[in-house]
Amino acid sequence: MNLSWDTMFESAELGNSIDKATFQAEVPALRQDLLNAQFDLAQSARFQVIILLSGADGSGKREVVHTLMEWMDPRHIQTRAMGSPSEEERQRPEMWRFWRILPPRGKIGIFFHSWYSAPVLKRVLGQTTDADLDQSLDDIARFEKRLTAEGALLLKIRLHISKKKQEERLRKLEKNLKTRWRVTKDEWKHFELYDDFTIYTQRAIRRTSTPEAPWIIVEGTDERYRSLTIGKVILERLRAGQLTDQAMRPTRAAAISKNPSADQHLLHALDMSQHIPKPIYIQHLEKCQGQLNLLTRRREFRNRSAIALFEGWDAAGKGGCIRRVIWSLDPRQYQIIPIAAPTDEERAQPYLWRFWRNIPGHGQVTIFDRSWYGRVLVERVEGFCSEDDWMRAYGEINDFEDQLVRNDTILVKFWLHISKDEQLVRFRERAKTGFKSFKITEQDWRNRNKWDAYERAVCNMVDRTSTEIAPWTLVEANDKSFARVKVLKTLCERIGEAL
Amino acid sequence: MNLSWDTMFESAELGNSIDKATFQAEVPALRQDLLNAQFDLAQSARFQVIILLSGADGSGKREVVHTLMEWMDPRHIQTRAMGSPSEEERQRPEMWRFWRILPPRGKIGIFFHSWYSAPVLKRVLGQTTDADLDQSLDDIARFEKRLTAEGALLLKIRLHISKKKQEERLRKLEKNLKTRWRVTKDEWKHFELYDDFTIYTQRAIRRTSTPEAPWIIVEGTDERYRSLTIGKVILERLRAGQLTDQAMRPTRAAAISKNPSADQHLLHALDMSQHIPKPIYIQHLEKCQGQLNLLTRRREFRNRSAIALFEGWDAAGKGGCIRRVIWSLDPRQYQIIPIAAPTDEERAQPYLWRFWRNIPGHGQVTIFDRSWYGRVLVERVEGFCSEDDWMRAYGEINDFEDQLVRNDTILVKFWLHISKDEQLVRFRERAKTGFKSFKITEQDWRNRNKWDAYERAVCNMVDRTSTEIAPWTLVEANDKSFARVKVLKTLCERIGEAL
Repeated sequence: MNLSWDTMFESAELGNSIDKATFQAEVPALRQDLLNAQFDLAQSARFQVIILLSGADGSGKREVVHTLMEWMDPRHIQTRAMGSPSEEERQRPEMWRFWRILPPRGKIGIFFHSWYSAPVLKRVLGQTTDADLDQSLDDIARFEKRLTAEGALLLKIRLHISKKKQEERLRKLEKNLKTRWRVTKDEWKHFELYDDFTIYTQRAIRRTSTPEAPWIIVEGTDERYRSLTIGKVILERLRAGQLTDQAMRPTRAAAISKNPSADQHLLHALDMSQHIPKPIYIQHLEKCQGQLNLLTRRREFRNRSAIALFEGWDAAGKGGCIRRVIWSLDPRQYQIIPIAAPTDEERAQPYLWRFWRNIPGHGQVTIFDRSWYGRVLVERVEGFCSEDDWMRAYGEINDFEDQLVRNDTILVKFWLHISKDEQLVRFRERAKTGFKSFKITEQDWRNRNKWDAYERAVCNMVDRTSTEIAPWTLVEANDKSFARVKVLKTLCERIGEAL
Repeated sequence: MNLSWDTMFESAELGNSIDKATFQAEVPALRQDLLNAQFDLAQSARFQVIILLSGADGSGKREVVHTLMEWMDPRHIQTRAMGSPSEEERQRPEMWRFWRILPPRGKIGIFFHSWYSAPVLKRVLGQTTDADLDQSLDDIARFEKRLTAEGALLLKIRLHISKKKQEERLRKLEKNLKTRWRVTKDEWKHFELYDDFTIYTQRAIRRTSTPEAPWIIVEGTDERYRSLTIGKVILERLRAGQLTDQAMRPTRAAAISKNPSADQHLLHALDMSQHIPKPIYIQHLEKCQGQLNLLTRRREFRNRSAIALFEGWDAAGKGGCIRRVIWSLDPRQYQIIPIAAPTDEERAQPYLWRFWRNIPGHGQVTIFDRSWYGRVLVERVEGFCSEDDWMRAYGEINDFEDQLVRNDTILVKFWLHISKDEQLVRFRERAKTGFKSFKITEQDWRNRNKWDAYERAVCNMVDRTSTEIAPWTLVEANDKSFARVKVLKTLCERIGEAL
């Protein structure tokens, strides 16, 4: 669609309409095609379809949904419309409530009151500035890019109705005894703000129209015209998506340096000889645990949350560190999330979905035993995802962590480092000790053979995701006591600073 | 364990203890056995293990969890401990918050502050009466019976510590600078209520000790004794569970009458000739839709919720009815949940879990397109579950619905009935009409051949689950207009009465 911004909505005020005969002639074939396309979508389950339906009151959003529900198979459509966020939602980053209701691959989700609603409404009501709105819109643009990059089909439809038409429509509905229940006070209030809504909606559309997810503006006045137009747009995009969902992915990020020495010096610079003698260890440990307990019980922590994530070589001692951390926490406060193979509900969603679903509410600590960094570690090295996927992941992860931190989550990331020799010693010891032998598998030995590839991946990861707001802590873990104390001290420091 | 009620806790005040040498000699083998049993559990994933850990403050609950986390593989253990319910939890029946965090099959969930905590605490604080407590305990006993009936292994462990020992312990912890952070004001407050806690805890234990889920009382004073005892109990139950999870199921409910005429007269009594001429239909429809909209917008509805569930023959017109219902609702208010094959997360949980996860919050309407009644309809007739399973389901369902209704949910259940001849007409018509042909599958024809078996199942279902609080509405649906108006009228009536 060719849009000039000055007249963004003018082309949607042309009085487009379709006569009944044409409509009735076209609908049966369109319905059949839509059902077939939907059937293909459900069968292949390669991507999900997210339809944002936006528009002033009275522009026919409701009716469009109802028509779509009638034309298509409603069992594969989820309508998603929400009022104000709940307490659980308010405790988490703004996007959490949308993540939790994304349709899985193979399904269509129709969003009323999408992620655009609150930012635009707040600006219209004068609660925020243009800069705030732009910041929100940039967040949204990045979020949408993530979705489409993983194959999601995103249709953003704006139903437009001119100010005059809207007034006529509301008055007409109001006069009819049978339909007057459809006009509420809110609708008149919004009508008064029509011009402001237009200004900021145009701003939103301008800043978030991308080749992957363009806005589609549809004149909303004539019921037959808008239904048929939207039905056809959906059909066209569904068919295109089915053909090209791989091709739609954006080109890869800049290549990563292939110079192994540059890549690896980060880890080589660590002083792996550091250790703590046992009696001093016990002393330090108890002190840190007491301190951590007090910190997480402070009144200020009740409006904060914390995430500690642990990555590291096999046998680096993640489990031991985690146990020392939880020992100092109230069992009501923490949750350990071990990251293993995703469930099928998780596989049907964008990569980060299974982490989003587990982020803590206020006063809570979530410990990830392995984490979203699997994408740029094991998935990269083992080839479980494409190069595009893991290249893109650095940016996705930084963005995700940025949202967490802006939501007052204290995020602490540990890489537990041991030398290759130390790993061998531990593997052998585990194989010997009965109750530890379950910890060592064929897979561990195979991973060990890829040490260098993993080392490069780790260095790239730290390099690209150690940000000011969420730095990595590299833990020299050849000595378990040293590692545990360093982990606990770091946690205390980071939480202490934040409160 | 042989418990005399008068002296329930006396046997746990004998001063049991284990010396260090014995402990150290026994632990390695126990750890290995526990890990093996846990490995078998994870591999077979036939059942989940739910460990309730109860006990006064200072009885060592925390330490037991930490020991178990150290002895076993923490990646397959979820600790579940919670403070006060969140807003989303408060809007739903009390048990919702426990349902939402049940461990899936193959995993172990350790619950602190389980479903016993609130009822006992409220009684101790004098906020409820004995009768209230008993009612809660009966609810709990039924809930636990459902869990174990589906194979869950439920271990209810009470750590006991005598009043004297508890005081000594708290004072000792408090004196030590390194451990004083572990004694909070709450702990002293609870200590003052020690006797009351003992009385009501005993009452709870007495009323909820069943052969499938007995309480296990363990003396909590000596750390080594309690760890070893609990470790052994868990091991024993894990092994037994692995061998007998089928055999543990209770015997089946009373047999259902096999007299087909008695079973079927319910449906045969319907006057299937009822119909509404088109113009009157439109009039009625609009009136009902307006009324339903107004009802769901009433202030009183903001603290209520509604569930409309639709069952019926294939091609009976469920979809058409649902569309007419949602037409009158605000899209922010409703959610349609179509019931198809469960996901793997759902399959790893008790049968009702996937319905619990979808029940509405305040001000919301959830429409189930097919429902939990699948258990006693399609699953019964097609043999997807055992006879025990569907026999037991009637009671489970009544109990589930009872909890919904007590939580102020308005529950309306529709069976859409058409005659066998009418179904044939509709099947043929669907096969002919392009955009309807997706609705008719081989499966539908196969189901049709089992008409009599389904009819019996429907009659049994209505007979056994049409309760005063949640009656079935049988809808004569040979005439679609009649059916839609009856559905809408019924909804309006039921919601109107309730508000």
